Amino acid sequence: MDTKRNLIYLDNNATTKVDEQVLEVMLPYFSEYYGNPSSIYRFGGLNSKAVKEARETMREFFGAKSAKEIFFTASGSECANMAIRGILAADRSKTHLITTKVEHPCVLNLHKQLEKEGYSVTYAGVNSEGEINKEEIYEAVNEKTALVSCMYANNETGVIFPVEEIAQKVKEKNADTKVYVDAVQAAGKIKLDVKDTQIDMMGISGHKFHAPKGIGALYVKSNVLISPLIIGGHQESGKRAGTENVPEIAGLAKAAALASDALEFEATKVKYLRDKLERGILSKIYNARLNSSTYNRVPNTTNIGFEYIEGELILLNLDDYGICASSGSACTSGSLDPSHVLKAMGVPFTALHGSIRFSLSRFTTEEEIDYTIEKMPLIVDKLTALSPFQKELRELKERKGII
Amino acid sequence: MDTKRNLIYLDNNATTKVDEQVLEVMLPYFSEYYGNPSSIYRFGGLNSKAVKEARETMREFFGAKSAKEIFFTASGSECANMAIRGILAADRSKTHLITTKVEHPCVLNLHKQLEKEGYSVTYAGVNSEGEINKEEIYEAVNEKTALVSCMYANNETGVIFPVEEIAQKVKEKNADTKVYVDAVQAAGKIKLDVKDTQIDMMGISGHKFHAPKGIGALYVKSNVLISPLIIGGHQESGKRAGTENVPEIAGLAKAAALASDALEFEATKVKYLRDKLERGILSKIYNARLNSSTYNRVPNTTNIGFEYIEGELILLNLDDYGICASSGSACTSGSLDPSHVLKAMGVPFTALHGSIRFSLSRFTTEEEIDYTIEKMPLIVDKLTALSPFQKELRELKERKGII
Repeated sequence: MDTKRNLIYLDNNATTKVDEQVLEVMLPYFSEYYGNPSSIYRFGGLNSKAVKEARETMREFFGAKSAKEIFFTASGSECANMAIRGILAADRSKTHLITTKVEHPCVLNLHKQLEKEGYSVTYAGVNSEGEINKEEIYEAVNEKTALVSCMYANNETGVIFPVEEIAQKVKEKNADTKVYVDAVQAAGKIKLDVKDTQIDMMGISGHKFHAPKGIGALYVKSNVLISPLIIGGHQESGKRAGTENVPEIAGLAKAAALASDALEFEATKVKYLRDKLERGILSKIYNARLNSSTYNRVPNTTNIGFEYIEGELILLNLDDYGICASSGSACTSGSLDPSHVLKAMGVPFTALHGSIRFSLSRFTTEEEIDYTIEKMPLIVDKLTALSPFQKELRELKERKGII
Repeated sequence: MDTKRNLIYLDNNATTKVDEQVLEVMLPYFSEYYGNPSSIYRFGGLNSKAVKEARETMREFFGAKSAKEIFFTASGSECANMAIRGILAADRSKTHLITTKVEHPCVLNLHKQLEKEGYSVTYAGVNSEGEINKEEIYEAVNEKTALVSCMYANNETGVIFPVEEIAQKVKEKNADTKVYVDAVQAAGKIKLDVKDTQIDMMGISGHKFHAPKGIGALYVKSNVLISPLIIGGHQESGKRAGTENVPEIAGLAKAAALASDALEFEATKVKYLRDKLERGILSKIYNARLNSSTYNRVPNTTNIGFEYIEGELILLNLDDYGICASSGSACTSGSLDPSHVLKAMGVPFTALHGSIRFSLSRFTTEEEIDYTIEKMPLIVDKLTALSPFQKELRELKERKGII
């Protein structure tokens, strides 16, 4: 495969291309202005200035009140671990946690581990559209509840959760309960604005919006105390030790600024292409079903189930056409279990194993979408013909009035 | 200041310039081959291949038996926290730790925190040359000792600790006690070779040997069980969640390969320049004293005390000549306390506040060293003339037979 020619990358929820403008901002900090921001000479000062400016840009990106509320990390996973462990370590009196069944593994698996360590955890469900059952969260809040962790947008379906409302209602029930929002899949797709909310902490990951892999940022409201996950030097106000990753911090800030500028484009052009892809596939493929049709999704994501065929086979066939998409999340791939998100939504068994996520970016072109709409029916027809479920497929056709 | 022209960077223990060859290896992974290594399509496979190859290179760099023993992290600090917390979380039956008084803050401050959490810690000291008091470690090992953490080379003095021997003797006393070696300041300066040793874990940081900031690697012997610090996806065999930082992982491996090739150069040319700088300063400045004169130091580091003057003022004056050096470690700078390393060595109060670390790299030139030897006496003379300790300085001169 010539990976450069004809590559159609529709897996932007897994990772994204680093924007050339981001790379340009990063480059001088590798071999030219490479000093340690902690050093007292001016050559180091250039770097601490870059970090300071980036922190201010990220403050703006989160809509935070103060740049002191922003902590640079190495990933979205680190953000979640730092926030959740950080709250629990800072106050060991509370032993109950609430999260959702559809969180990213970095939140979900951490909660599974915390159960082993003696915490009790309530996992709130979602409806068949992938929308959160908010009441399950509110009902579970009690005086022992240390933290509610709820994602902003689901990585597999793109469904947006009403995190501001959830934070508000949680606090009404227990003002001491903290709220962590994994905003990894929301950042760069919809506007973040924490300042007038009850959200205590929010994590993002740069490589989901055209910054490089290896950089994230955690917002922690100024009055919220967390213990550090990585202890050592004084960096990040003593909350996260390790020499600052200056090039990637500068790159993250540039990516955030570019993403902010592109939000309108995401909401219009990217959404137009996503909707076109969705409608194109659904209209041409009788055994396709939209796993979540809610309007309230990030504009770049669609998750479509193809009944009675295998998702992995669809992906391999797409790969032959140079089209990149995914089943489930990249972080759970390699596992044969079907998506925990789609299972929580009650997606029928017949479509669960044949569900594909397409996630676009601002670099996606209409030609790429048209090409994908053209190829998908060929792939699905071929695989459907090989399916052992011919009787069920015939019944499906009958129900749809095709035969 | 024109930071590019005439910059003489003698602070390579704080951070280093990214080698242009390293950057070249990294570049394609930002905007061209940017896939997620976990993805099943071939475009992702390119990245998992890069990570796999880098892991093999790092296996070689550590002298490990298997690439499965190598875990990529974001920093040396993360390595230390992951290793130390990881051992303690995997087996909660042991409550005693041993480390040294001269560790980097990521080890030392973590132990201070662990004391607050109920662990008891023995801190072994060093002699006046900065050499570890090994017997203090051996004597402290008991049946409750979970872990001994001892650095390979000290960041401030460059003194090399006999970590292989220490691991051997610790195991003889308690075969269950684990040994962590912070090799951040040894990597790239002297050869690492863990395979025939009793060392269980070893951490390194890329930006200390011409890889970028934001990448580290942890060696964990295959039979040693650690709990993950960052929980989430399946990356790094489930021991460290987060999308792999592919460009920096590839860069780390390239930097490691280049450093391995340059070890002979470090041991000869870099050492020659370090020794020249040391001798030049000591012969020209009567109130200079070598804080550690042991032969057993990494070849690039010297730490020199200037009696009765302030280190920070020396650094600022050096900065005016475009020379970058440091007092203490970058990770503790900003603090007014004198170096905990020099204090542990018993460096006299008169020199403690006026100690400067010069750390060279393979990019350091003889012209730069000559220039520094020329300027240092001017700076020290100027500051000595302003010192309030004129009587003591006169006595020092008399003792040295200068007047």
